[in-house]
Amino acid sequence: MPSKNAFYAQSGGPTAVINASACGVLQTARQHSDEINKVYAGRDGIIGALTEDLIDTSIETDAAIAALKHTPGAAFGSCRYKLASLYEHREQYERLVEVFQAHDIGFFFYNGGGDSQDTAYKVGQIGAVLDYPIVCIGIPKTIDNDIPITDCSPGFGSAAKYLSTCIREATFDLSSVSRTSTKVFALEVMGRHAGWMTAACALAAEQEGGAPHVLLLPEVVFDERRFLAKVKQATERYDYCVIAVSEGIKGPDGEFLSAGVKDAFGHAQLGGVAPIVTNLIDEKLGYKCHWAVADYLQRSARHIASETDVQQAYAVGCAAVEFAIAGKNAVMPAIRRLSDSPYRWDIIEAPLSEVANQEKLLPPGFISHDGFGITAAARRYLAPLIVGEAYPPFKDGLPDYVRLQNVAAPKKLVKEFAV
Amino acid sequence: MPSKNAFYAQSGGPTAVINASACGVLQTARQHSDEINKVYAGRDGIIGALTEDLIDTSIETDAAIAALKHTPGAAFGSCRYKLASLYEHREQYERLVEVFQAHDIGFFFYNGGGDSQDTAYKVGQIGAVLDYPIVCIGIPKTIDNDIPITDCSPGFGSAAKYLSTCIREATFDLSSVSRTSTKVFALEVMGRHAGWMTAACALAAEQEGGAPHVLLLPEVVFDERRFLAKVKQATERYDYCVIAVSEGIKGPDGEFLSAGVKDAFGHAQLGGVAPIVTNLIDEKLGYKCHWAVADYLQRSARHIASETDVQQAYAVGCAAVEFAIAGKNAVMPAIRRLSDSPYRWDIIEAPLSEVANQEKLLPPGFISHDGFGITAAARRYLAPLIVGEAYPPFKDGLPDYVRLQNVAAPKKLVKEFAV
Repeated sequence: MPSKNAFYAQSGGPTAVINASACGVLQTARQHSDEINKVYAGRDGIIGALTEDLIDTSIETDAAIAALKHTPGAAFGSCRYKLASLYEHREQYERLVEVFQAHDIGFFFYNGGGDSQDTAYKVGQIGAVLDYPIVCIGIPKTIDNDIPITDCSPGFGSAAKYLSTCIREATFDLSSVSRTSTKVFALEVMGRHAGWMTAACALAAEQEGGAPHVLLLPEVVFDERRFLAKVKQATERYDYCVIAVSEGIKGPDGEFLSAGVKDAFGHAQLGGVAPIVTNLIDEKLGYKCHWAVADYLQRSARHIASETDVQQAYAVGCAAVEFAIAGKNAVMPAIRRLSDSPYRWDIIEAPLSEVANQEKLLPPGFISHDGFGITAAARRYLAPLIVGEAYPPFKDGLPDYVRLQNVAAPKKLVKEFAV
Repeated sequence: MPSKNAFYAQSGGPTAVINASACGVLQTARQHSDEINKVYAGRDGIIGALTEDLIDTSIETDAAIAALKHTPGAAFGSCRYKLASLYEHREQYERLVEVFQAHDIGFFFYNGGGDSQDTAYKVGQIGAVLDYPIVCIGIPKTIDNDIPITDCSPGFGSAAKYLSTCIREATFDLSSVSRTSTKVFALEVMGRHAGWMTAACALAAEQEGGAPHVLLLPEVVFDERRFLAKVKQATERYDYCVIAVSEGIKGPDGEFLSAGVKDAFGHAQLGGVAPIVTNLIDEKLGYKCHWAVADYLQRSARHIASETDVQQAYAVGCAAVEFAIAGKNAVMPAIRRLSDSPYRWDIIEAPLSEVANQEKLLPPGFISHDGFGITAAARRYLAPLIVGEAYPPFKDGLPDYVRLQNVAAPKKLVKEFAV
């Protein structure tokens, strides 16, 4: 079989280690030039394929590709673009075939979360339906850790390490001032419907009962009375209370707590559930509160990445190319846990049809009886994922990250395509 | 002269490195047991002296004291308690004399910002006025960098390194998604009236014109029209815009921008100027925005401390004890810059009378012509302060910080004192 070119793209919210997966893909492809000729990266995910905006990665040096392993963000740009089904929107798929054909692309690698695995799955259908043979492999990525089958999602371990480190450090600060000033600190955590990241904050506890004292998980309905009682109890017992609050918590009415927040001008405010719960505490319990919203910091903090996570992100990138070369199709490399302690794992295949569009929430067995903490089983699951430091190089006191050249390959098609 | 005991306390907001100063004080005192017997630490700053709540540091192991060098927070507790003048509130000072006499304290070390140097200065007056000879030495500390005479304040360099690292990382994230989604990211920075920390965010720029594109400094009046024009210009030119906004910015009316923010329940919100400026952008320019508020994270992020800052924090602690033993009084060890590049510094004496209650703002020569950036002079000043990494040890994936035993020395006075 003559060698074909490959398409690789990144999708959804970036993570601290998605570029480590890119590094795995590109380095492994370079080692298999008999099977894979050039790797074209889609600028901004699948949009790059639809608009024929293909980045020629072959002009990047080996050193630049290696530096991706320690660089946050999505080096080729990302998107949240969902393909409709082949039957609803056949012209999108015909366009993909046109572009792939024009650039002799025989391999499709798509790096993202549940929605992105759906894209990879759908693109895989053009082989049978549009008679364009292409190997489609998904590569898992999300700080939310909500992709099924894989034991964990690359990106999650580093976000978990960042968040638990923040909680531990803020606790050292808070416990210094709680006798004379601030009693409560709340950190707002991403993750939408899935509480994995909020749960990971619990790893910060120095001992049983240590901070964080209260987790507000999106899997548990927010109950104001019970929450305030829990905060009061912790504050009376420890003199201070640390809270990790998921951006996605909902009240008994099923509405996000953060919905309906207005600023001074009466405009709806973007996010910010931490100020809401701390205002509630201030008003009902009279405790002085501080709050933080980490936002993008939690998904880009490569400086405090988990070495375990970096290794896994790199490994799924390498495995994706190896799977493709081995003739596998419509699969995603998934992490399989072999043991908790010592932590051992390997890579298996997950069918794209089973991972696409699924959302793996925190299981009930991981949530403590009162709903404000995690169980020993959750701790066993989470603990190994944050282990190991993988510091990036520093220059002049700052992390030295790489910016690729990202030069577009010459277009071969006359027709433009609107996305 | 027979050896006397010493009193050491921490005051104001903790930093990532105030315990490095404590380490310097305690290790140096232990090396001079002929002159200094025990070091008692005040629990919660000067309040510990007034309430006779003295922590006996002699029971802590050398290893625990050494671990303070890499532990954030204020190990002995902190406060924001201001002493009135000796003439207004003489009984406070008489109480201090009582406590010091009961515990044979001849040295007073007070570790904090401008307000705390005022406390050290006032306590120094009990020698002359109340006839209780005591050596008083201030030790500088503040993330705000607003203490005069000293070239920089220990704590600032680490906060500056943390913030500029966050800005750089968030920029890698934002630039991945800006073509298809979020255009603006704003990070809210502490510092109240002084813009040093917001200015330090500018170090994150990878090249001339790089992010952050807009600094909102408290030294510059917030002008909505000019601000929006600047954001629009940056976004049109770079496709995205990164903003560092000081919590202390004020409008033309002299009011804090963050005043008057109401939450969904109509209650005043605690802080949060980043959501205000991003809402403004969203409404007037239609750009999708994200924002983060680092709050305590920026002053406790010991995991990304500046090695330069750790060295200076430790050095001022050591110097304070050496000054005291050399018979100096009513002074504060200050950092003197000898050259920018290579960066060289030493320690000099600053009279407490000249540092107490002064606030050193960003000088006009450090602020760019348009008010939204910094000058080359500012960059020369700031750059060396974030250099070097000083990672703490990690255990199970998390920083391994020390908690001291903090055992109180037996009280010798019957009388209690209300603070």
